[in-house]
Amino acid sequence: MIDRAAISQARQRLSALPQFLRTTPLLRLPGKALGVECREVWLKLEHLQVGGSFKARGMLYRLLANTVPASGVIIASGGNAGIAVAAAAQALGVRCEVFVPEVSPEVKRARLRALGAEVVVTGAAYAQAYEACVARQQATGALQAHAYDQPEVVAGAGTLALEMEEQAGHLPDSLLVSVGGGGLIGGVAAWVDSRARVIALEPEGAPTLHAARAAGQPVDVSVGGIAADSLGAKRIGTIGWEVSQRHVHDALLLSDDAIRAAQQWLWRELKLAVEPAAALGLAALQSGAYQPQPQETVGLILCGANFDPASLV
Amino acid sequence: MIDRAAISQARQRLSALPQFLRTTPLLRLPGKALGVECREVWLKLEHLQVGGSFKARGMLYRLLANTVPASGVIIASGGNAGIAVAAAAQALGVRCEVFVPEVSPEVKRARLRALGAEVVVTGAAYAQAYEACVARQQATGALQAHAYDQPEVVAGAGTLALEMEEQAGHLPDSLLVSVGGGGLIGGVAAWVDSRARVIALEPEGAPTLHAARAAGQPVDVSVGGIAADSLGAKRIGTIGWEVSQRHVHDALLLSDDAIRAAQQWLWRELKLAVEPAAALGLAALQSGAYQPQPQETVGLILCGANFDPASLV
Repeated sequence: MIDRAAISQARQRLSALPQFLRTTPLLRLPGKALGVECREVWLKLEHLQVGGSFKARGMLYRLLANTVPASGVIIASGGNAGIAVAAAAQALGVRCEVFVPEVSPEVKRARLRALGAEVVVTGAAYAQAYEACVARQQATGALQAHAYDQPEVVAGAGTLALEMEEQAGHLPDSLLVSVGGGGLIGGVAAWVDSRARVIALEPEGAPTLHAARAAGQPVDVSVGGIAADSLGAKRIGTIGWEVSQRHVHDALLLSDDAIRAAQQWLWRELKLAVEPAAALGLAALQSGAYQPQPQETVGLILCGANFDPASLV
Repeated sequence: MIDRAAISQARQRLSALPQFLRTTPLLRLPGKALGVECREVWLKLEHLQVGGSFKARGMLYRLLANTVPASGVIIASGGNAGIAVAAAAQALGVRCEVFVPEVSPEVKRARLRALGAEVVVTGAAYAQAYEACVARQQATGALQAHAYDQPEVVAGAGTLALEMEEQAGHLPDSLLVSVGGGGLIGGVAAWVDSRARVIALEPEGAPTLHAARAAGQPVDVSVGGIAADSLGAKRIGTIGWEVSQRHVHDALLLSDDAIRAAQQWLWRELKLAVEPAAALGLAALQSGAYQPQPQETVGLILCGANFDPASLV
């Protein structure tokens, strides 16, 4: 089970490699500075993490907590998880294979290769690349890494919330967390452990947790929209679902327009260049989807910045 | 004279408006993470300051330390200083006129107007806009703000170094500072007060301090190159020159290629989107123009991010 002890243990283990993971800055602003009627908004600048997203925490922990065979680590991912595994594997000097579908952009493949990964392009879409990855794993015995549904991956993500609490000396009153497969919110909610409100945020076009809550269990959803690139899981992971049932207060949906407006605001007013998935928290505040109390301190997690900055203008 | 006492006083005065200026994050990384053979590199993320550059500190102080007449504040600037004055004037509810030359891009004028400034477009180049600004100031009696050569502006900039020292508990061994008109280095070097090495960095195309050091006094230089937008002063300011003679150890020149490579590296590897002027410190380290000792801690100041992020790709 992912709980505070598991996350403390992850943190302990990760600290063995201090040259790799970064302690990402926590920017604290009065709510007014973001046009929000609340006391403070905290922005955890996790997009400045190695590999440009929070995923490096979980992926490094997956590698450190298991024996990595000579065949290395293997993953199917065209996005942040693949970059994070490749970066972690490079830091540890182990082999890394990343399976990506034919639709994946060449710029992402080049990035993976630059990190020393072997890139295998196969299948029309992610599902086919994933199948090929599983078959390859069975042949080579490589350590499989999953983008969000493995205990080490969730616990690793949770160290981000632990770090935020350390930096500020306490938790915010509420934490707004973007949800795709549920790895991030699983880790964050497990660390928070009902000591603060945790609100899940999803794009209308990729409502994995919202749909699961409505159905009472994880269900497949169709995926699209502005943040599909990083939040486009088809179904909430079992770990994220389990933790969220205990510790997540609400799951809100946001329009692509609200997400896009918040992403542009973050660049224009704060000079933070982040991917759409990282703008959901501000979108919830600025659109009024989440309305904090006047004395509330709200924590946002800027979870990634693997995107084309030309899209900001 | 700008000294540590003057900077402490500036800090005290600026703290009267806690909702406006931001405490910008200090990101500490092992040198290795930037490919540099030194103990640590500190990045002061001052591009996240209000108005997207360090200038807000000095401009707010200029306004707070003087009586602002009903005619408000006036400045000639098409760049960071103009944005900073406009933002500070808006926060204080005073009038603001910004004179910009005809060559200034419409996007910058729109930004100034959005901050409530009255934008006067006049003159073929900056020099003519400046003359018109001076004439207007004499007619209206508005408070004139200068982009770099006023005591409040330099002392305000110096609060950035004070804040860095507070955040880390001590100064780095050396501080690499980009130089245009000398406002930033004047403030930083005065605060450091020979307790650390201060190294001035300039683009080859805009060498105001380098030329002054060679001539033994401020001299006009021709201005061009990748960072001319924000470092393109024609002559080092008298205050910056005075302070730098006492406290600046060296003035290094960097090629546009090295600056551009460092700017791109900051985005690709750290997800920091900054203007070319903010990349000189890393350019000096990565090009070898400045070679730190193995045990050295080097401080860099990411001074601004008012640029088109599409230029990063």
